Amino acid sequence: MGLKERINAANAEAFRRIVAADPVLVDVAPASEVIPGMRDRLILHSGPPVTWDRMCGAQRGAAIGMCLFEGWAADPVEAEQMLRSGEISLEPNHHHSSVGPMAGTISSNMWVWVVENKAFGNRAFCRQVESFQQFGDHSSSAIAQLARWRDVWGPALRAAVRKMGGIPLKQLVARALLMGDEMHNRVVASSSLFANAVAPVLVDCGLPKEQVVDTLYYAGNHPFLFLGISMAAAKASVDPARGVEASTVVTAMARNGTDFGIQVSGLDGEWFTAPAPRVEGLLLPGWKEEDAGLDMGDSAITETVGWGGFVIGGAPGILNFTGGTAEQALAFSREMRSISVGRSPDYLIPALNFEGSAVGIDIRKVVQTNTLPVIDTAIAHKEPGHGIIGGGIVRPPLECFTKALTRFGERSSEWSEGPLSGRTATSIPSS
Amino acid sequence: MGLKERINAANAEAFRRIVAADPVLVDVAPASEVIPGMRDRLILHSGPPVTWDRMCGAQRGAAIGMCLFEGWAADPVEAEQMLRSGEISLEPNHHHSSVGPMAGTISSNMWVWVVENKAFGNRAFCRQVESFQQFGDHSSSAIAQLARWRDVWGPALRAAVRKMGGIPLKQLVARALLMGDEMHNRVVASSSLFANAVAPVLVDCGLPKEQVVDTLYYAGNHPFLFLGISMAAAKASVDPARGVEASTVVTAMARNGTDFGIQVSGLDGEWFTAPAPRVEGLLLPGWKEEDAGLDMGDSAITETVGWGGFVIGGAPGILNFTGGTAEQALAFSREMRSISVGRSPDYLIPALNFEGSAVGIDIRKVVQTNTLPVIDTAIAHKEPGHGIIGGGIVRPPLECFTKALTRFGERSSEWSEGPLSGRTATSIPSS
Repeated sequence: MGLKERINAANAEAFRRIVAADPVLVDVAPASEVIPGMRDRLILHSGPPVTWDRMCGAQRGAAIGMCLFEGWAADPVEAEQMLRSGEISLEPNHHHSSVGPMAGTISSNMWVWVVENKAFGNRAFCRQVESFQQFGDHSSSAIAQLARWRDVWGPALRAAVRKMGGIPLKQLVARALLMGDEMHNRVVASSSLFANAVAPVLVDCGLPKEQVVDTLYYAGNHPFLFLGISMAAAKASVDPARGVEASTVVTAMARNGTDFGIQVSGLDGEWFTAPAPRVEGLLLPGWKEEDAGLDMGDSAITETVGWGGFVIGGAPGILNFTGGTAEQALAFSREMRSISVGRSPDYLIPALNFEGSAVGIDIRKVVQTNTLPVIDTAIAHKEPGHGIIGGGIVRPPLECFTKALTRFGERSSEWSEGPLSGRTATSIPSS
Repeated sequence: MGLKERINAANAEAFRRIVAADPVLVDVAPASEVIPGMRDRLILHSGPPVTWDRMCGAQRGAAIGMCLFEGWAADPVEAEQMLRSGEISLEPNHHHSSVGPMAGTISSNMWVWVVENKAFGNRAFCRQVESFQQFGDHSSSAIAQLARWRDVWGPALRAAVRKMGGIPLKQLVARALLMGDEMHNRVVASSSLFANAVAPVLVDCGLPKEQVVDTLYYAGNHPFLFLGISMAAAKASVDPARGVEASTVVTAMARNGTDFGIQVSGLDGEWFTAPAPRVEGLLLPGWKEEDAGLDMGDSAITETVGWGGFVIGGAPGILNFTGGTAEQALAFSREMRSISVGRSPDYLIPALNFEGSAVGIDIRKVVQTNTLPVIDTAIAHKEPGHGIIGGGIVRPPLECFTKALTRFGERSSEWSEGPLSGRTATSIPSS
């Protein structure tokens, strides 16, 4: 088998694993119960590894919020001191089978969605989505929302999800894609369908009526309810595609507001980073360009399985959040085919006559065509202490992909079936 | 004011009334309680007036079903005899401020959605949608579904809707249009949003838990739940635009499977009919072209307010029901602008960059451009006794519009501000 064929075969295997995924929501649980390696005085965050001194304002604000939520610090000043001193550890979600929206912070008592990929047996986790603390707001009202999730809504949904024996997500997501969701920043249909699914069961769980009613109001009116589930489903779906020798398929795109990092199947365990880019989009009233922080969040995991920007053509309702036209959105989804291994047999785009979404980003194709993945995303403030300030479209730095491709050549010497000795990015054959 | 200006001003007024509508779901109730003129031994049906001898198979089957549902007849043979003899009266829904899907049959004990147009104070009614009896199936299982609606689901939803003080529909519909609904044959988003809106209230109405759970399962899993609400909302919205002197705006399009009929604002009370056309579309597995009945149902009331085929470009998810391509669907919605008075300020099409839907069909424009309204619809069997067999796209016969325009010339002599004496269709000035 020639080199090109070998890489293509490896990518076909990575693609096969991604599309074979069977994500099922099996639980809602405290992070300490379910996330591998979760421990006291540890905050998980979005993106590649980052130290406190390089951490962006919004993520700092969110980390301060977690110290207050956990009761480790009495106030933001004390929290900041603990974080700066290293008394609180910081590690990426992605190192713990987890993902988090925006700042992405998860600590022991944060309840998380638990998605099991029934086709492979692996699990992934994501915290719940809200519009304040995850953007860096550490006010008492922002922290109070987290407490409600921990004490009322999370436990109620846990009871319902467990009573149902889990909720299969593949069909639910497929239906939502026909309803104008793209599973990243537009999840109103999936959120609504999810609330429909749990409602009758929730009534029958023996919970106090007030908790049932409160949770039904919460679930039925949260436009981003499903995003945490979607992200955990994407992470659970793509993780089995990690570590396929000789595969150039992207297995993670994640940003911490300082760096944009990607991971690649055949280079598992390594991050390829470059400075986080600015997001092009729309700001909420009262905010200016110079207020905006840089690209942040693990939510681009949705694009690695062919959702988000890859299906945005079918979700024009998102354009009043991100900006852009319906024609541009369709062009984005078509364009993503040129950098992907194949098309999903399950996740279809009705506006493209039910053609499958593009799945499996090939770093070779990205570099060769200079076509970067399209990611739709929210925008946080550059300073700590604020909620969401906008949304838009972003593309990763090309540098992440060229670095990865160069390293791909270097590491080919480790391949069990023989090296790709001394090759560099430019000498790796095209797909 | 010249003749053209006078008609245009009248149409602007009709248009103003339609877009000013503020439909609110205020009740769910037995027809006998709320529908004006409802009485024992009366069956209301869809479309223009029709006698038993001319009635199509599916509508006959549905009328037989109502006789069984009401207990007027012990079996279909007796029911048919009562209907043929005139012992049971048949009148159009539209003569009772009502509409009904497909065969559209409503009798005293059929529970109906009650929508009040708060801007004008009028009410309209529509029966609940299901996939069997309304298509002509009068089997015991089809009738049992109607009984469940009457005994369990209808009363539970009545309690919730009343406790909520009504559910405003304008915003709900506007949201659903951003989620790929078109409010005629694709109402999955609005149904889901509606189910979530009632869920927490339903839990708090003091109903037996079994009824609450059963109703939540029903509401959360009925893909056409909202269609009856949508139709009542459309009827309530367009009714105030009836009877505007000199207006050529269509106020009803309705079919009984034998005739297609339209009503026109300035010609209120008259039907302009032509033979019901064949529907072009997709049949469910097992059915053939020759099984299909002709176009049927009051549901085209949705198109008269700018929904259905007028917004189908934003609802490509419907195309696996109706057939056709996403490009054709967008073209349909654009084309409808050429026969309409204006654009809705509230009901927007995201796939057309949030432009408003075309509202107010002008019979002059239809005739002058030979462009007929696009209606998406379900397909019934031509014989009694079957459920839904397919879906597709249909256009009304041009003859309905030319007849109406001719009559418009004739009746201008009655105008308070002077006649349009002796004019015919061809001499009425263009818009």
